[in-house]
This record gives sequence, structure tokens and C-alpha cells, in this order.
Amino acid sequence: MADLKENKQAVIALDAMGGDYAPAEHVKGAVEAVNARQGFLIKLFGNRDKLEAELAKYQFDRNRIEIVHSESIVENCDVPTVAIRKKKDSSMVMGLYALKDDEAQAFISCGNTGALLVGGQTIVGRIKGIDRAGLAFLVPSEKGPVLIMDCGANVDCKPEMMVQFARMGSIYMETVLDVKCPRVGLVNIGEEESKGNSLVHESFPLLKECPEINFIGSVESRGITEGIADVAVCDGFTGNIILKSFEGVAAIMLKVIKGAMMKNIRTKIGAALMKSELKKSLELFSVEEYGGAPMLGIKKLVVKTHGNSKAPEIRNTILQCSKAVTEDLTGKIERTFYGI
Amino acid sequence: MADLKENKQAVIALDAMGGDYAPAEHVKGAVEAVNARQGFLIKLFGNRDKLEAELAKYQFDRNRIEIVHSESIVENCDVPTVAIRKKKDSSMVMGLYALKDDEAQAFISCGNTGALLVGGQTIVGRIKGIDRAGLAFLVPSEKGPVLIMDCGANVDCKPEMMVQFARMGSIYMETVLDVKCPRVGLVNIGEEESKGNSLVHESFPLLKECPEINFIGSVESRGITEGIADVAVCDGFTGNIILKSFEGVAAIMLKVIKGAMMKNIRTKIGAALMKSELKKSLELFSVEEYGGAPMLGIKKLVVKTHGNSKAPEIRNTILQCSKAVTEDLTGKIERTFYGI
Repeated sequence: MADLKENKQAVIALDAMGGDYAPAEHVKGAVEAVNARQGFLIKLFGNRDKLEAELAKYQFDRNRIEIVHSESIVENCDVPTVAIRKKKDSSMVMGLYALKDDEAQAFISCGNTGALLVGGQTIVGRIKGIDRAGLAFLVPSEKGPVLIMDCGANVDCKPEMMVQFARMGSIYMETVLDVKCPRVGLVNIGEEESKGNSLVHESFPLLKECPEINFIGSVESRGITEGIADVAVCDGFTGNIILKSFEGVAAIMLKVIKGAMMKNIRTKIGAALMKSELKKSLELFSVEEYGGAPMLGIKKLVVKTHGNSKAPEIRNTILQCSKAVTEDLTGKIERTFYGI
Repeated sequence: MADLKENKQAVIALDAMGGDYAPAEHVKGAVEAVNARQGFLIKLFGNRDKLEAELAKYQFDRNRIEIVHSESIVENCDVPTVAIRKKKDSSMVMGLYALKDDEAQAFISCGNTGALLVGGQTIVGRIKGIDRAGLAFLVPSEKGPVLIMDCGANVDCKPEMMVQFARMGSIYMETVLDVKCPRVGLVNIGEEESKGNSLVHESFPLLKECPEINFIGSVESRGITEGIADVAVCDGFTGNIILKSFEGVAAIMLKVIKGAMMKNIRTKIGAALMKSELKKSLELFSVEEYGGAPMLGIKKLVVKTHGNSKAPEIRNTILQCSKAVTEDLTGKIERTFYGI
């Protein structure tokens, strides 16, 4: 297998053991990603035998996927700080050290979110000028994806952090999704400046005065699905609530619609006629399409994917990371914040 | 017209001038309500000539709907405190005084939410032992409606208020929706006790120790749509975010599904075959079915309906109020909190 270190292509490290469908779906997603696009290499962190067995199922360029053997796994029940300190031989911790040591430029994991956050900040380190890294999540809207940040890394935030989220989120949308001059909205319970809780009241003037962003004022969570903003800034508690509300409603609606379709012969015929169009339209609501959630504010790109990720989400996240690395996302964030 | 004061039936006052479709839809909803069920009378507050003209369109028992003439309207752009103090001749303020003076047992308005909250607390007054009144909203779930409280009245809350919301919400679900021993969940970003922001951390032990409620621990916003709890307790900022997230996702999904149905001849035929079943299933997500949002904690029942309410929401809210008055909802809340 080629020595990836000497290769100048982007190297994307993947925790192949974290998540509900590891390692089968992770390996499948990795293979699909290298078969879909050129320009990057993948390091799979995990049990060598298991990963070899999975890789043997597919046709792909073996020079583009390397296995790095790891002994243990950070489990979801592990206490984050303890896991990062003690499980040095785990796929997650080894992957994070590969980032720190410049053996990879991005790291993806479906594993323990808390551990990934702690590990990202302690092993890889925060960018100078950033108080706390945040989780940024892409959600669908009528006018394309909207980035919500923070989505759960920081449940209690200071106004200054909200401005940092806004700046990092803008750079992400410009760099990775090619959105010019992204519109930044402050998540609120009304569009008037008088609305909101104390954090919103204190953050609003700081966002308004920030010259680096295109601040459009308050947006309601309803406005996010309408695509009023490209970046929706909030504390991690609020962001997580929005994300899970979106997922919850979408899930129950799909269930109800499917139930109605299967009700009787008549509806089944109707469903058969509509199926392909409906499927195409509903893909808009599939989390898989949007890839994982980058933890912005860390020196290298660390991306969290859903615990129940399957191959399509893994593949899309890898392709997203490849773009972010090629466009030097973290370098851009670092240069913007340097000296502040 | 009969003098309603001497009648022992429940009297429901309706602000017939507030909201986007006033007074036409309000009058229609009121007529539908009296034609649907016995046991209550309605007082319509608004411009007498306009209301008479609308009432003339329908067949109903004229002894059950009375008009109380009012000159002005509290507009959505009015500053709540100023409107309540200055617009004494408005349909909203006059309706609230009718509550205070025992001329009605419930008051419904689609108008300015802030003004209704201020007016409810200052004119009608808070129940002894309650720090702040909260807005309770019913949302659909797989297992029936879930009450979210607070939904926007109090953006910054204290832990004690969360316990009061839990107790009042439980009484509401038991009294008005006949839910025995309602399960109370604390809205959180994970089910573990360690999760959450500082308000959640401080509220959790208080809820756990409260003997009057059936506390089941933390629930995620995704869990609300799954119907894990009957009452979901949160601060007004979080509640409003959830509500508008639900509405936003439901709206965009319906739009996308309708678009897919109308795509071509094939899908149009399919849609025609499925239409009635789909419509029936999707009624679950119609806000109209659930009526308005009661402001719990006020001495008499004050209910806020959507600004864009049409006749079905008005009708259902009136019927809901009739049940709440007959079952003495506010009396039950008052007796529970008395002496605390």
C-alpha cells in the first residue's frame, strides 16, 4: 500500500469503528467516495482484519485507502474525558492524533459526540481567538441547505461565542458550499429586535456591528426551513432542539404519509404512480444528503456524523471533507481569527 | 337577546376583531360552535354593525350569541402595556374586563399576543402562588396531543417557574383532555440527567421531587413528536422555537409533497387515488384541530389563537373552553396552588 504521507493529496481519516453500522457501512461509504471522485486518500482507523474483510468485497483503487490498525473503541457510554485520556489505542483517539501529527487533514467519526468534541479540542487544539468550538449542522430549506451553529457543543453560550459561530459558519458556507456573502440570522422567537431571551438581546448588537458577516437580523425557526438565512446562529441547546424538532416532525410525517399510502388497494395504486416523484422530492429531507456536522473552531477539520450513519452519509461526508481540505477551510478560519 | 348574566351556563367571550380574518371567520366559528354543542353562551366583542351583518348570514339560536359593542382594536403593532392601558374601548380590553367582572368565564383572542398576556395578568390577575403565567400549546404526536409549556410568554425562566408550568400543564391535560396521570417530561438535548443547560440542570431535581406530577425525566424534542410525554416543560424561548420548528417543517414538507403530486399526469392520477386517505392522515398536523393556547396561571381562562385563525380553529377553541369552564380548570389550578 502506498505511503500516504509522501502523497500531496488530501488525507481523510475515518473512524471505522464508531457508530451503529461500523465497520461495514463505513467501509462501503469510503469505497463509494474514492470511486466517485479523485483528489484524496482515506485512512481507515479500526480493526485490521475486520476492515480487510469488508474491503475485499469491493472494487476500487487500493492505493487510495489505507488501514491503520487500532485495538479498542470509544463506546457511547464512555465518559468523554476519561475515554480520550485512557483509550489511546482506540480508532477515535488514534485518528485525532493522526490529525494533530499532520498525517491527515480531516477526521470523521460516527462515535461518541462528547468524546469527539473533547478530543478535538484537547488533542488537535482550538484555533487561536476562538473561545469554544461549535457543532455546525446543515438542514434542508426551500432555498437550499442552511447551517445551524451551534448544534449542541455548548449549551450555555456567551454573546462573543455567538459572533464567533457566525463568522466561522459564514466561512464554511462560502468555502464548502460556495454561497457568496452568506446571510447570517440570529435564531429568535420573532423578527423584531425587542424579542428574545437575554443571550439574544446581548448578541444582537455584537452581530450587527461585526464587519465580517452579512447579518440580516433575527430569524424564527420557521424561517430556517423557508431558507431566509444561510447561517442560523444560536446556543447549542437551542440548536440541538431545532435539529431534533426537524428530525422528529419529518419522521412522523413520513410515517403518516406511508401509512396513508398503504391503506387499501386504491391508495396503493396511487402510491405506485407517485412513488418516484415523491421519493425524489423527499430526498430533500434526508440527512444523508447533507453529510456530517463539522466542529468548527478546531485547528483541523473534525466532522461528526450520525450514530446511525450508513454508506451514503459516510460517502457524502468524505466528499464534503475533501472539498473543505482542498479549499483550506481551517486555514481560512485561522487567518481570519489570527491576532484577535 | 337574553341577558346572559342570569343564565348559569358557561359564558365564553370572544375578541371578534383581532386576527387576520376578523370578524367574518370569528363569527362563523362562533356559530359553528353553538350549533355543534349545547351548554355555553358566547359574547362577541366588536363592532356591532359588522358583527350583526356577519351573524345575519347564519341559522343558529340567537339566545346563545350576544354582541358587546366595542369601538377600537388592539393592533399587532401596538405596544402591549400601552394598548392595555389606553385602549379601554377595544374588543380585547373590554373582553378581559368582562372576565374580571364575572360576566364571562373564558376569553379567546387571535390578536396581539403580548397585549393579551399583559392584559390577562394585569386586568384579570394571576393565581396566588404562581410567579408567571405561561402559554401552553398542544402539538400532535404519534400518541395524541402533547402540551408544550411555556411556548413564549417567559423567555428567561427560573427553575421554580418550570415546576409551576409542569403542575399547571398536568392539571390542564387531566381536566380538558382526560389524560390520567399525565407524564411530564423536561425538554432537553438528551435523555441523560447530565445533559442540558443550567436551567435544565437546576429544574431537573425540583421536578423529580415534586409530588404532584408524574415526572418521567428528560425528553428530546424528537421525543415530543413520538408522544413520549403528555406535558413537555421548557422555558418560553425553547418552547416557541419547538413550536415554530414543527410548523416550519410541516409546512415545507406539505409543500414538497403537493409539488410532487402535481408533477405530471401520472402523479396527478396517483394523487387523486390517495387524496382522501392522505388528507385524513395529514389532519393530524393541522393546528386547527387543537384549538388555541391557554395562558395558564391567570385567574380565569384566557386563550390565544393563531393570528391567521379561521372558523375551524375558533370553533374548536370555543368547544375546548366550554369543557375547561364546565370542569372548572382555573378553580382546580387555584385550589392546587392555594397557600403555597
